[in-house]
Amino acid sequence: MAAEEDAEALAAARPLLTDLYQVTMALGYWRAGRARDHADFELSFRRCPFGGAFSLFAGLRDCVRFLRAFHLRDTDVQFLASKLPPDTDPAFFEHLRGLDCSRVTLRALPEGSLAFPGVPLLQVSGPLLVVQLLETPLLCLVGYASLVATNAARLRLIAGPEKRLLELGLRRAQGPDGGLTASTYSYLGGFDGSSNVLAGQLRGVPVAGTLAHSFITSFSGSEVPPEPMLAPAVSEGPAVNLPAHVKVWLERVCAHLGLGKQEPHPGERAAFVAYALAFPQAFQGLLDSYSVRRFQMPWLERISITVSNNVDEEELARLVQEGSEVDGIGIGTSVVTCPQQPSLGCVYKLVCVGGQPRMKLTEDPEKQTLPGKKAAFRLLDADGSPLLDLLQLAEEPSPQPGQELRVWPRGAQEPRTVRPAQVELLLGLWVHRGQLCQPLPPLAESRAFAQRSLGHLRAAHRRLQSPEQYQVALSEQLQALVGSLSPRSSP
Amino acid sequence: MAAEEDAEALAAARPLLTDLYQVTMALGYWRAGRARDHADFELSFRRCPFGGAFSLFAGLRDCVRFLRAFHLRDTDVQFLASKLPPDTDPAFFEHLRGLDCSRVTLRALPEGSLAFPGVPLLQVSGPLLVVQLLETPLLCLVGYASLVATNAARLRLIAGPEKRLLELGLRRAQGPDGGLTASTYSYLGGFDGSSNVLAGQLRGVPVAGTLAHSFITSFSGSEVPPEPMLAPAVSEGPAVNLPAHVKVWLERVCAHLGLGKQEPHPGERAAFVAYALAFPQAFQGLLDSYSVRRFQMPWLERISITVSNNVDEEELARLVQEGSEVDGIGIGTSVVTCPQQPSLGCVYKLVCVGGQPRMKLTEDPEKQTLPGKKAAFRLLDADGSPLLDLLQLAEEPSPQPGQELRVWPRGAQEPRTVRPAQVELLLGLWVHRGQLCQPLPPLAESRAFAQRSLGHLRAAHRRLQSPEQYQVALSEQLQALVGSLSPRSSP
Repeated sequence: MAAEEDAEALAAARPLLTDLYQVTMALGYWRAGRARDHADFELSFRRCPFGGAFSLFAGLRDCVRFLRAFHLRDTDVQFLASKLPPDTDPAFFEHLRGLDCSRVTLRALPEGSLAFPGVPLLQVSGPLLVVQLLETPLLCLVGYASLVATNAARLRLIAGPEKRLLELGLRRAQGPDGGLTASTYSYLGGFDGSSNVLAGQLRGVPVAGTLAHSFITSFSGSEVPPEPMLAPAVSEGPAVNLPAHVKVWLERVCAHLGLGKQEPHPGERAAFVAYALAFPQAFQGLLDSYSVRRFQMPWLERISITVSNNVDEEELARLVQEGSEVDGIGIGTSVVTCPQQPSLGCVYKLVCVGGQPRMKLTEDPEKQTLPGKKAAFRLLDADGSPLLDLLQLAEEPSPQPGQELRVWPRGAQEPRTVRPAQVELLLGLWVHRGQLCQPLPPLAESRAFAQRSLGHLRAAHRRLQSPEQYQVALSEQLQALVGSLSPRSSP
Repeated sequence: MAAEEDAEALAAARPLLTDLYQVTMALGYWRAGRARDHADFELSFRRCPFGGAFSLFAGLRDCVRFLRAFHLRDTDVQFLASKLPPDTDPAFFEHLRGLDCSRVTLRALPEGSLAFPGVPLLQVSGPLLVVQLLETPLLCLVGYASLVATNAARLRLIAGPEKRLLELGLRRAQGPDGGLTASTYSYLGGFDGSSNVLAGQLRGVPVAGTLAHSFITSFSGSEVPPEPMLAPAVSEGPAVNLPAHVKVWLERVCAHLGLGKQEPHPGERAAFVAYALAFPQAFQGLLDSYSVRRFQMPWLERISITVSNNVDEEELARLVQEGSEVDGIGIGTSVVTCPQQPSLGCVYKLVCVGGQPRMKLTEDPEKQTLPGKKAAFRLLDADGSPLLDLLQLAEEPSPQPGQELRVWPRGAQEPRTVRPAQVELLLGLWVHRGQLCQPLPPLAESRAFAQRSLGHLRAAHRRLQSPEQYQVALSEQLQALVGSLSPRSSP
């Protein structure tokens, strides 16, 4: 695995995966003597995707890997120098050469968490220049991962817990890493596996697949398999006459698919016999109608691939409501490309610099940022279901279970009171001054966490169409700070 | 650049970026003694994207790189062994260890070509097992690159040749490589550049950018720049009093944006002074109203980024029709995620094996494949505009300029005659038995080729809404072969 990991690490560490303006701003900060000012940025989204009331957060492992590997090589600095004015002070490039994330601290929701608008997914603190440079890569790594995980979670909610959902979209993904990201995070969001072998190799995603149509068309029937008698599985009786079994099985499949009595093409028979010779155990499984539910049927996989362009939320709901006998469903384009909404639209905003809270002033209240370094809590009911997420200033005391507190729901004109039965601290410390503080959980664990979290969410919020919005509220102190920094409050 | 190229080559060479069923089929072919059968596959799409009548072909350079680097390492083979039945013959894995593309031949359209439904973008020939394994990576590499290039070409047609179009979508891309692919191929499709620095470094895409809102919010006004007097550019007169100039300039920008007389926040003034100190030449340019057209104005870039979530084809058309003074337009989400249609839906079909033509039999005529190894020609009018694309069997003589020939338009019941003034051979030989046969043109050259090709396309086909479909026709021999292999022709 070492070579693979090296390639991945190299790919992850591409520090120029950023917008040029991050670099020109870096020069601006440096020239103003502010490169090392301590800055706090928050990454969040403004609206849940797909018309829903929840999102899953994903991509933390990629962000951590990026931060820890972040370093500008000589070739990178030379390239940047070629894009900046020729009279730029060489000392700036010396500064860039010495950059890394050894003074950067990252707090984040756990991977697979429920996430809501305005609640930070990531908090990134460190020298202004370097945390500014991280903006684009972090947005890129979190946005799509969270979007596809949320998309997968919605499809899982529609399918119910039993149906086997496979992601088959690598060929439709937006670039190779788009495919790898999609396979990884659709699994995190609730799929059972993927056809993408690389996602299995690099991320441990369960992989699945049998055969495609080209295998069938490659046989004309004249290719007599060298040994059409299938040896028995260990201690499982006599040899099997494959061609005869394939004939019976193809008839069954045709009947199952409602195709009536069709005479399979001789090439089809030969192809299945050849496949059975390669996978005798799996094929014997196919002959057993119970096992049809445990193994993918080659013919059905053909169907699912054909259908995969069209299996969207609506079609999946139809398949499920029909109580279809098919319990494995392959989804390609509509899980990986998220056609309902192809981008989560995250933002990365400066909330504090040199200890002073900052706020983006704008007339659009949705785009107004929340100033100051914050703590975030999820207030829960006695049954463990979330009541609301509370944002407050980092220095305020934590809310206590059983104690009533007054909070300002975002966008509301009036405060409300709430008495949580339980309180969860949302943002954990993952990287402190460049050092990993706790191990990242395995992907399968984050997947289970996501499913448990979704299970606790009230049905009204979990509903996919016209859900009730989940409340995010500010503490009184934070609300007061917003007021004091808003333009209308100035004289 | 060596280290970068290594990282890229490693990333490109990930041979397990494929669907598991390619591997199970490989075992099936091998077990049937057919691994080395000579096979011909064609990669094409069925319908032009976005409701248009043309597509651009892109991704060839990535395919060539993938083929040339293709090789399964020991760790890859071990991983595959862990996913196949434990009793799989070890000789199969030995076969996999020895695989490469040294017997694979690739023909393709030139990068940036106009492409139409059913006309092969790629023809891949070689041993059945290996060319089957290439299916998923080639579909992944061609599909999105072509889609985003076509999307960019449409936006360029709307914008006209003069407007400066910048791709700003890295943060909204579907994974890091999604961003790199989007930046590269939106440039190929007709954009002027990208904000993505890595696309500049690795692909030579022009990069651009100035500053974002966080730079402004990071200043409160108390940060007095150390030297507010700007030294003159070489031989350009006296020193400039920056704060005074910034004040004037901000007023002009506000007026230009129709914001009326606003008093800029002291932090805004300080931010622009700091920026001007870092980029004195560019800023002096900004002070000159002519140069506003040559350099991006920081304030306008803020606007374009804000707007970038919303600049789609319709909004761009509106901006252009208004004759807006803005001549640089940044587009993010809608160019990189292709929300109108997020996948091109390419297919990779076996057309010939062991010299025998093969055809996928299906009741859906659109999904029927065209059998046999083919040649493709573009028949042109005297003015160089394409009349139709002709597919014929590889062994047929080429159509000749000035000679009338009878062809069967796809889907038509009757043949038609056509007399081309010029004939172009469409599919060039790029890789012959693993060896690159001709250098790949630089990206900028492919970009210019795409623009020239689009310029020759008749307006009726180039039109973005309700265009006239461009004809793809079969030779009489190919038409006869299709007929002989179709189910209805069998007794």
